[in-house]
Amino acid sequence: MAKWDKKFMQERDRLNEIVLSGKHLGIKRFFALDDQAYHGGALDEKTKELMGLVASMVLRCDDCIEYHLLKAYEAEATREQFYEAFNVALVVGGSIVIPHLRRAAEKLEELI
Amino acid sequence: MAKWDKKFMQERDRLNEIVLSGKHLGIKRFFALDDQAYHGGALDEKTKELMGLVASMVLRCDDCIEYHLLKAYEAEATREQFYEAFNVALVVGGSIVIPHLRRAAEKLEELI
Amino acid sequence: MAKWDKKFMQERDRLNEIVLSGKHLGIKRFFALDDQAYHGGALDEKTKELMGLVASMVLRCDDCIEYHLLKAYEAEATREQFYEAFNVALVVGGSIVIPHLRRAAEKLEELI
Amino acid sequence: MAKWDKKFMQERDRLNEIVLSGKHLGIKRFFALDDQAYHGGALDEKTKELMGLVASMVLRCDDCIEYHLLKAYEAEATREQFYEAFNVALVVGGSIVIPHLRRAAEKLEELI
Amino acid sequence: MAKWDKKFMQERDRLNEIVLSGKHLGIKRFFALDDQAYHGGALDEKTKELMGLVASMVLRCDDCIEYHLLKAYEAEATREQFYEAFNVALVVGGSIVIPHLRRAAEKLEELI
Amino acid sequence: MAKWDKKFMQERDRLNEIVLSGKHLGIKRFFALDDQAYHGGALDEKTKELMGLVASMVLRCDDCIEYHLLKAYEAEATREQFYEAFNVALVVGGSIVIPHLRRAAEKLEELI
Repeated sequence: MAKWDKKFMQERDRLNEIVLSGKHLGIKRFFALDDQAYHGGALDEKTKELMGLVASMVLRCDDCIEYHLLKAYEAEATREQFYEAFNVALVVGGSIVIPHLRRAAEKLEELI
Repeated sequence: MAKWDKKFMQERDRLNEIVLSGKHLGIKRFFALDDQAYHGGALDEKTKELMGLVASMVLRCDDCIEYHLLKAYEAEATREQFYEAFNVALVVGGSIVIPHLRRAAEKLEELI
Repeated sequence: MAKWDKKFMQERDRLNEIVLSGKHLGIKRFFALDDQAYHGGALDEKTKELMGLVASMVLRCDDCIEYHLLKAYEAEATREQFYEAFNVALVVGGSIVIPHLRRAAEKLEELI
Repeated sequence: MAKWDKKFMQERDRLNEIVLSGKHLGIKRFFALDDQAYHGGALDEKTKELMGLVASMVLRCDDCIEYHLLKAYEAEATREQFYEAFNVALVVGGSIVIPHLRRAAEKLEELI
Repeated sequence: MAKWDKKFMQERDRLNEIVLSGKHLGIKRFFALDDQAYHGGALDEKTKELMGLVASMVLRCDDCIEYHLLKAYEAEATREQFYEAFNVALVVGGSIVIPHLRRAAEKLEELI
Repeated sequence: MAKWDKKFMQERDRLNEIVLSGKHLGIKRFFALDDQAYHGGALDEKTKELMGLVASMVLRCDDCIEYHLLKAYEAEATREQFYEAFNVALVVGGSIVIPHLRRAAEKLEELI
């Protein structure tokens, strides 16, 4: 396991608790829908996490990229699969994606 | 085959020819990279086309959505797989994706 | 009532039925969350619909703009309030919002 | 008052001075339009600041979120009103908004 | 002159009048700032219109693209310059720009 | 030369090496296309770098902004030209661009 992932998940959990302390039912339900969207079904979990990764890259959200990187890795995505997903995101989203790709590649190499 | 797909591909081809008539080498090479990004490799073509579909939905590009819908269908994605991909895009991209989801679902039902 | 709104809502309903015919539980639940987000609570419905309008303008989604325009009008937003909301969206989102502002203003004048 | 807001406003002022030292008349006028957009009129200041907050969340700009959070708080928005605005932004913008929502909720809890 | 440009400018003028009939001072001033931003100064008008074109392409706004295409053409941008600008936009913005590039190239060929 | 630019380019090079260590041919080719897009041709290098700057500002990517700021400065863009480019980006992209404009202006003043 990489050094960054534990810290990342802890900070994520700490902030999620703050959000949920606002006790807004709609937000709570959205969080549940978000979790369920990546459960295996007609598409397996790895595929869905890689889809989440590509979507996060083209929308350029580093936190989201790190999260799906970690989850896809746990679902046994390989380095080659990650780089092919990176390439789809790069071609769709353009050079504006590159700073995020750089950070994603660094995180991936620490993880794998 | 649906009625829309042939017309869609013909119009796409007609306009691509106009773009390429500009004889810009960078643009020509970009088009080649774009094609190659979806070839099967460590991830199969269907998975990549579905990734392209999700990326196109969260970036809200109807032309791109139709194209990847068609290509993923040709690569044998099932209705259930399409709806799971739609759901990932909806959760990631939010309600702003819904008008595109509506049009995508209509195109899908005509196709499948 | 304007001529456009009835047609707009009918087409919206027709396409929503197609989406929901896919029987994806996550999508169905998302649609419910989307509806509930604009119900009056600590902020009244008109305020929330105007928020939805501003968000739709800066994200540049014509369908979403038309929908929130109609709902805010039903919740008794005035022409002056619409133009102040338009102005917030224009300043936040920049000139790229103007084509959507033009279409929104035309729809508003037909409605009011 | 929270600890972050004073520092945030000072840094903002320091950088605004650098921008305005460029003496570009268009930029100066844009800054004036930006200020005026949130003055109370047919919609009150609190409503407009909450609109600015929602727009900033769906466009995912942390600096803008912090600014409108602070201004809406000064205009007496309540915790419940903030969370309802957060929810509108989350539903419109999708899970990609969540990292910004987390940071916004943390800032809000320090402020209120 | 192309057939599309006259019609395009007339429709634009018609809708601008509707927007300005709302008599919102902020919107009126924004429109003035927008015009002035492209006046020749330290950078000439052609360069600024091409910048506006590239910005409009990466933000994917067809109306904005058509407008800057026309204005840059009036400022004597050449076909080669347009295609180099198209290429910058394509590389920065990625394949999601391609549908807009297609329509822009068609408009350009009708114009030039 | 400013203090930030050397460090910025070194970090950029370090991360590019990690990305390229993934040995994905499509990514490598995209990086080449990205470089070539700014070479002088029918438009000179300075103009293209300023276009890249404006595109990066409206898409709100700080890393991209810093890079094009540096490259346009090396291509002899003047302070007045930078501020006119900043203004185009601000008008097109709206107030959401301002936090990036602030940071860009600070970097520029350190550079010039």
